[in-house]
Amino acid sequence: MGGSVFGTLFKVITFGESHGPGLGCVIDGCPAGLPLNAEDISRDLRRRRPGAGGASTSRAEEDEPEILSGVYEGRTLGTPIAVLVRNTGQRSADYDKLKDLYRPGHADWTWETKYGFRDHRGGGRSSARETLGRVAAGAVARVFLASRGIEIRAWTSSAAGIAAPRLFPVSEPQAADPAFDWDEIERNLLRMPGKAAAAKALEVLTEIAAQGDSAGCEVSCLVRNLPPGLGEPVFDKLDARIAGAMLSLGAAKGIEFGAGFAAALGRGSKLNDQPVPAGNRPPEWAAGLPPGVPAASWKSNNSGGVLGGLSTGQDLYFTVAFKPVPSIMKKQETINRRGEKEELAIQGRHDTCIAPRAVPVVEAMTALVLADLVLLDRCSRV
Amino acid sequence: MGGSVFGTLFKVITFGESHGPGLGCVIDGCPAGLPLNAEDISRDLRRRRPGAGGASTSRAEEDEPEILSGVYEGRTLGTPIAVLVRNTGQRSADYDKLKDLYRPGHADWTWETKYGFRDHRGGGRSSARETLGRVAAGAVARVFLASRGIEIRAWTSSAAGIAAPRLFPVSEPQAADPAFDWDEIERNLLRMPGKAAAAKALEVLTEIAAQGDSAGCEVSCLVRNLPPGLGEPVFDKLDARIAGAMLSLGAAKGIEFGAGFAAALGRGSKLNDQPVPAGNRPPEWAAGLPPGVPAASWKSNNSGGVLGGLSTGQDLYFTVAFKPVPSIMKKQETINRRGEKEELAIQGRHDTCIAPRAVPVVEAMTALVLADLVLLDRCSRV
Amino acid sequence: MGGSVFGTLFKVITFGESHGPGLGCVIDGCPAGLPLNAEDISRDLRRRRPGAGGASTSRAEEDEPEILSGVYEGRTLGTPIAVLVRNTGQRSADYDKLKDLYRPGHADWTWETKYGFRDHRGGGRSSARETLGRVAAGAVARVFLASRGIEIRAWTSSAAGIAAPRLFPVSEPQAADPAFDWDEIERNLLRMPGKAAAAKALEVLTEIAAQGDSAGCEVSCLVRNLPPGLGEPVFDKLDARIAGAMLSLGAAKGIEFGAGFAAALGRGSKLNDQPVPAGNRPPEWAAGLPPGVPAASWKSNNSGGVLGGLSTGQDLYFTVAFKPVPSIMKKQETINRRGEKEELAIQGRHDTCIAPRAVPVVEAMTALVLADLVLLDRCSRV
Amino acid sequence: MGGSVFGTLFKVITFGESHGPGLGCVIDGCPAGLPLNAEDISRDLRRRRPGAGGASTSRAEEDEPEILSGVYEGRTLGTPIAVLVRNTGQRSADYDKLKDLYRPGHADWTWETKYGFRDHRGGGRSSARETLGRVAAGAVARVFLASRGIEIRAWTSSAAGIAAPRLFPVSEPQAADPAFDWDEIERNLLRMPGKAAAAKALEVLTEIAAQGDSAGCEVSCLVRNLPPGLGEPVFDKLDARIAGAMLSLGAAKGIEFGAGFAAALGRGSKLNDQPVPAGNRPPEWAAGLPPGVPAASWKSNNSGGVLGGLSTGQDLYFTVAFKPVPSIMKKQETINRRGEKEELAIQGRHDTCIAPRAVPVVEAMTALVLADLVLLDRCSRV
Repeated sequence: MGGSVFGTLFKVITFGESHGPGLGCVIDGCPAGLPLNAEDISRDLRRRRPGAGGASTSRAEEDEPEILSGVYEGRTLGTPIAVLVRNTGQRSADYDKLKDLYRPGHADWTWETKYGFRDHRGGGRSSARETLGRVAAGAVARVFLASRGIEIRAWTSSAAGIAAPRLFPVSEPQAADPAFDWDEIERNLLRMPGKAAAAKALEVLTEIAAQGDSAGCEVSCLVRNLPPGLGEPVFDKLDARIAGAMLSLGAAKGIEFGAGFAAALGRGSKLNDQPVPAGNRPPEWAAGLPPGVPAASWKSNNSGGVLGGLSTGQDLYFTVAFKPVPSIMKKQETINRRGEKEELAIQGRHDTCIAPRAVPVVEAMTALVLADLVLLDRCSRV
Repeated sequence: MGGSVFGTLFKVITFGESHGPGLGCVIDGCPAGLPLNAEDISRDLRRRRPGAGGASTSRAEEDEPEILSGVYEGRTLGTPIAVLVRNTGQRSADYDKLKDLYRPGHADWTWETKYGFRDHRGGGRSSARETLGRVAAGAVARVFLASRGIEIRAWTSSAAGIAAPRLFPVSEPQAADPAFDWDEIERNLLRMPGKAAAAKALEVLTEIAAQGDSAGCEVSCLVRNLPPGLGEPVFDKLDARIAGAMLSLGAAKGIEFGAGFAAALGRGSKLNDQPVPAGNRPPEWAAGLPPGVPAASWKSNNSGGVLGGLSTGQDLYFTVAFKPVPSIMKKQETINRRGEKEELAIQGRHDTCIAPRAVPVVEAMTALVLADLVLLDRCSRV
Repeated sequence: MGGSVFGTLFKVITFGESHGPGLGCVIDGCPAGLPLNAEDISRDLRRRRPGAGGASTSRAEEDEPEILSGVYEGRTLGTPIAVLVRNTGQRSADYDKLKDLYRPGHADWTWETKYGFRDHRGGGRSSARETLGRVAAGAVARVFLASRGIEIRAWTSSAAGIAAPRLFPVSEPQAADPAFDWDEIERNLLRMPGKAAAAKALEVLTEIAAQGDSAGCEVSCLVRNLPPGLGEPVFDKLDARIAGAMLSLGAAKGIEFGAGFAAALGRGSKLNDQPVPAGNRPPEWAAGLPPGVPAASWKSNNSGGVLGGLSTGQDLYFTVAFKPVPSIMKKQETINRRGEKEELAIQGRHDTCIAPRAVPVVEAMTALVLADLVLLDRCSRV
Repeated sequence: MGGSVFGTLFKVITFGESHGPGLGCVIDGCPAGLPLNAEDISRDLRRRRPGAGGASTSRAEEDEPEILSGVYEGRTLGTPIAVLVRNTGQRSADYDKLKDLYRPGHADWTWETKYGFRDHRGGGRSSARETLGRVAAGAVARVFLASRGIEIRAWTSSAAGIAAPRLFPVSEPQAADPAFDWDEIERNLLRMPGKAAAAKALEVLTEIAAQGDSAGCEVSCLVRNLPPGLGEPVFDKLDARIAGAMLSLGAAKGIEFGAGFAAALGRGSKLNDQPVPAGNRPPEWAAGLPPGVPAASWKSNNSGGVLGGLSTGQDLYFTVAFKPVPSIMKKQETINRRGEKEELAIQGRHDTCIAPRAVPVVEAMTALVLADLVLLDRCSRV
């Protein structure tokens, strides 16, 4: 028990079921004096709302957050920040026929084996809607990180097998793609950093939706201006914490940092990122280095910005694999509450691919990890 | 700070530097009454020792554990179990010339940016030798899990790009390979489940070693007889905890569960594991299901044994990607403590590929996660 | 940071400022399947509301709780239980003149030294109103404990120096008072277990209030049907956890268990509680003892029901000392935000003595500790 | 489970049984760069060793600590600091006759109800010897605190009912006693701050020992140079954390801060500590106050240096009550493992009063709490 609390110092608890009265979060440990208002949170909540098009559900989720505590006169008090989003527009009746069935690829059955009991309406707390509390908390973490210049950007790197332009100049096997366009990400429905790829992927997804099927995707994330040394060896390393955070997302099936799985196939002489003198324009974080430690730059970033579990001062970079949305209209086999075989074709509003909505969630979880590690790092040295 | 403590109930702290007086662990939360002796721990420690052959270092590590507390008359007392392994045979002088250099691909520089200071001898606590405390603690966790019938097996699934026979019958893209041989794993130097693949990989590794280079690898892990419902939504899900544990290993660069990254390319209709009636011989765990919840079986295990972050009662299955060992004899660029460019060719005893030694470490970390989740699960229902 | 999270398994976070939008709690770790409704929570919230009479403030606090999550069809889901109480009827303007002053005996100045900033309205989160979230969470814990037969009762054992009849038969220095009347506790305004004492104390308090002054008090608490063995040595012992919980209450200045400070003056031969055979009617918990451990009874309970940090199976008994309410109408010296001397006479609605309102808060915190320890105890033995 | 871990950032785990191979601690979270050597730890360990005279046991405990990790070239590395003290000179056979008996006032029976099983030799982990790991860890915390000017001093304030001179100028009911002598504390066997009182108490204790009996005591503690604002509302307040730490000591039965239980009998107008301008020589901590917060002084320190759970910048002051040592030579009743009545007169080496040995333990636990709160406080403000 206790699985809904995240973090050591920037501590977050999320609460809420898909079709209950509301969802939200409480943050305990946000430092005092940070400028914060509801719009900071609304902005990210809007980004996780269903968009138009073939990719996302059309459920009207308004999701206006209310800050219940922890902020006074536009600044954080240092006390717990509670944020509430009321559930509205749920259609619980949609789920009545699922009450006695266990949906394939969903947590229905595993949940019951654990708790003996579940809120079947919309998946209860195993719903993707659960991420709303994470995004609200992550928005606060982002404000904190932004106050230190740290910037988090995620995007859809593949959807339904259609790859977006590739950003990262890993030395093998692939180089960066000039078609990668940061500005394009928030312009298209799939949050892909390339117009042509997005159009192609959307076309494929529309076809998949027409077949009553769904598709998987990958989301990549990059963090800029991260000072070196973040992470707490040996169990709370930067990559360990990010990996734990990402795999806590319902549909995540894998994660890789930097060269990732390709690194498992490579050689040390190619993969090692070799340090070089930092040059005439050292990064901003160089000013914060302990006495006697030189600034450094690197010839490559195969590590994805993490060495020995600590940030290197390069961009942090990782990619998360998400399985296809399990709710599909195609007929599937399952069992009912009596253990008997049944057939099931799920109706209703469901995303064909979660990529665009996963992007702000990946950003939010990244922010929660980093805010925690930034605070923990304050205690590294006497 | 506090990064050396792992787990909520089955809590472990590890300590020790590569060339300090000793390494070890303290386990707080192992239930009382478990039969345990030093040999239970020695067995796994021996498996992580360097073997012969091209793959592993030849440092003579004796690594005999001493149980300092928590066990009386062969049974655990319910009090902290401290285990100490003395360091012997370290040759600190080997590292003298590295004192003022930052090795590429190592944590030397990032460590100094965090702590201002490091024990340069053998990497100090960023050494792979740090995993010794994990393996000792994991051995205790395995005894606890074994007492409940839970069995953990890991193996090298690829080394230097040579793939071992593939175990897992994911519905796409690949089926299980009949050449997969459980008994072979502990027979060959690489811990590969196939004699021919192991021979081939060893050949390639020998060549790589001759070039002064190193290679990456993948380690897969399977857990049998895991009852369903283990995992604590939403942040301490089974896969989240496993991912966090694996990425806390120094060289790990990625992890995937079940179909993993392949799932990101697939369709829901293919990837969803469809439940079917459990049949005449339900698994043992069926007896522990809450009233009203039917036993279930599945047509596939693309999920890798985890749905909604909870174990499904199927085998848990995942694969971890490890980068090549960063210590190579080939000449590399780096900087020194004054920020000046230097060249470096690392001498001394170093593994060419960590695969065989990573296998018991992956098992140990899996055991630590599962022991914790088994205990946490005792509190799920009134 | 992170000071608003309490407990390991039955984990509670409270949030809210006195004059913000609302207060409440989130409980993460309440087992699934517990019958629970809003009235279970309202009941205890009503008991902490200001009563009539000289002892308590007359602020109209309605404090109706709303359960936002974690309960479905009248039973707990095993997911976080969020409870919200809206603030209504606050008169923030009452506090305007206190904005630049630091009230003696209050946290105004210390709070600013920590956070650099405070919500001065009603003390913000250092207000006694903060206990509302604790009482809401404690009410849920009580339902859980009641389902196991565990019963918690607190009462005012002294107010303004007037002692209530004494319950506990400690062998020295005092015996139980036959005037102690359980039924009287909830009948009088002071929650004293004796009508005459309550009348006398109320008389004294009325006089003190007329002088613009305030008074301290003691609250005692007794827990029945607690099975033996609760507590987690060595730092989370039953008494350690209770003491930490009680001293986290704003005005608490001390706690003692059983014979308490009197024990420091006594002899071992008098204070040791000597075990005796349990007799023909062993307590209910005897059925849960591990094999080979005999049931026991005792000739006295000077320990207050805790030995070696573990419950003994006798009644748990302790007393908490509370300082006088610091808000008084009498003129006091203080300083203002510029560090200059000022005089201050606090107007407005303030309790003369917190005893009656402290009673349900002491019960709530006791319940939170015990619910956590009951769950933790499930993992003591293989 | 998990009860042997203490602290959030300056995290300590202790291990070891009285008659096992050894005891010790691991500290995870001590900042890097702190000068530390074994003698820093030995010094406090020697102070908790049995002295001569009537008050303490004569068991020869050498208790030389070995630092196993976390320190390199005389400075802390930022990695876990493990300290081991071997058990030597235990006479396990002394305890053979106690194997089947439950000693009155000891944890023998409660321990068995929890764990089903115990190490009966010397009380196992419920022995006072368990505090050795605490003192070792506390010694490290003291070095950290001393580097910031924070100084902790404890002393015996009463033993066997004989009160030492009283230090603290609480406004009621008692003033400071001019006989209080800091230098005397470490000079006499009882660690009392007054020669005459110590002599008198020792005389009484000798008589009590001759009767085969034992006596209780009180230990007071004062912390100087504590900056204001330490403590984490609402559950990890300074006094809450100290109270939890003190009541985790085996024989502790109560604690009070500042005026303590006397405050429960007093009036607000007398007990409120009134702030006054800090004067021409503000304390050192005044330099660290946030902008706009004035330095303050107070007319009294009835609070014991804590307001709203935060340090006030005045001396922190509290007193702990300890019950008499339960092991006495006088005949007592008890039961055996079969639940039958037995008589028992405990032989062997036992303290008559734990006061002098409790003093360094109280200091150690205070240091552990404060080191943790000092680190946590680094995260209070943006």
